[in-house]
Amino acid sequence: MLREFVLKNRSYRRFHEEHRLDRDTLRELVDLARLSSSGANLQSLKFIFSIDQERNAHIFATLGWAGYLKDWDGPSEGERPSGYIVMLFDRSLAKTCFWDHGIAAQSILLGAVERNLGGCMFGNVDRDRLQQVLALDERYEILMVIALGKPKEEVRLVPLGVDGNIKYYRDAAGVHYVPKRSLDDIILP
Amino acid sequence: MLREFVLKNRSYRRFHEEHRLDRDTLRELVDLARLSSSGANLQSLKFIFSIDQERNAHIFATLGWAGYLKDWDGPSEGERPSGYIVMLFDRSLAKTCFWDHGIAAQSILLGAVERNLGGCMFGNVDRDRLQQVLALDERYEILMVIALGKPKEEVRLVPLGVDGNIKYYRDAAGVHYVPKRSLDDIILP
Repeated sequence: MLREFVLKNRSYRRFHEEHRLDRDTLRELVDLARLSSSGANLQSLKFIFSIDQERNAHIFATLGWAGYLKDWDGPSEGERPSGYIVMLFDRSLAKTCFWDHGIAAQSILLGAVERNLGGCMFGNVDRDRLQQVLALDERYEILMVIALGKPKEEVRLVPLGVDGNIKYYRDAAGVHYVPKRSLDDIILP
Repeated sequence: MLREFVLKNRSYRRFHEEHRLDRDTLRELVDLARLSSSGANLQSLKFIFSIDQERNAHIFATLGWAGYLKDWDGPSEGERPSGYIVMLFDRSLAKTCFWDHGIAAQSILLGAVERNLGGCMFGNVDRDRLQQVLALDERYEILMVIALGKPKEEVRLVPLGVDGNIKYYRDAAGVHYVPKRSLDDIILP
């Protein structure tokens, strides 16, 4: 069951933008993050939602899309995310968030997959601009942006080639391929 | 379904040590990490297993247990983890592992819970000693140790008190309590 969720939980970058998200769904997803493990139980993560079109557009403009697809600047109108969860580190609560952001993001995205949604984590964010867009207090550091929506693309995992190239790519039909190292490559004896 | 896994996936620190783990199970768990998202798809994480008693003992000696339980130095013999997954960053593959370690750990531990196992992530590790124990090349940085086994303790989530104290504690019966912030505390307007 979990393996199915993990397999289905790909990084999706094109969506049925007309599919609207509601605040309750995002609350359920963040609740999964809340109930997950936190380093030294400090729970220093905070979350902001965006589901309305104006805020979505402002957030979209701060994101760097798919670094390896040089001829693609991101999804066109109609295929953009239906919403976002911006994950913040609250500096007033801890000195570091440890690896809490990864844990939280994985819980959120596995929960999204269970709801037939999907998303993509962004570290490539114009943080200064997003800080302004969200009128964020300096106590918050933007850790990542999670784009969410109903996926409108196919993503396939493929074995890494002999050249060791890990860059994802698309074929002419727009199918997105992600080369993955083998299990024997990542487990040391 | 996922919410049940997330709820059951607590940080367990006492185990039925006599329950043995096999290498195939740990491979299945690491496969969940392998199939999870990786920043820029660089896949810089590597993994080492321990399931035999001698190696387990060496790894156990490098771990700092439950910082908030001042009168407890860790589980006694018979209640120690049945095995470990040591997560490494392979410096030859990337400059940073981004938040991949959190993602991978969450996939591994949710997979453990699905198999009626449980575990605990350790950042408090004597890395120099563990580097020696595992005879690790300098190219590897120890990110965390995940202890695994069949849990032998009850862990309960409770709301954070008005004093805001996030420290976990145990009652006289050995039940472990973890104060969690509320959803409204972590979602900004």
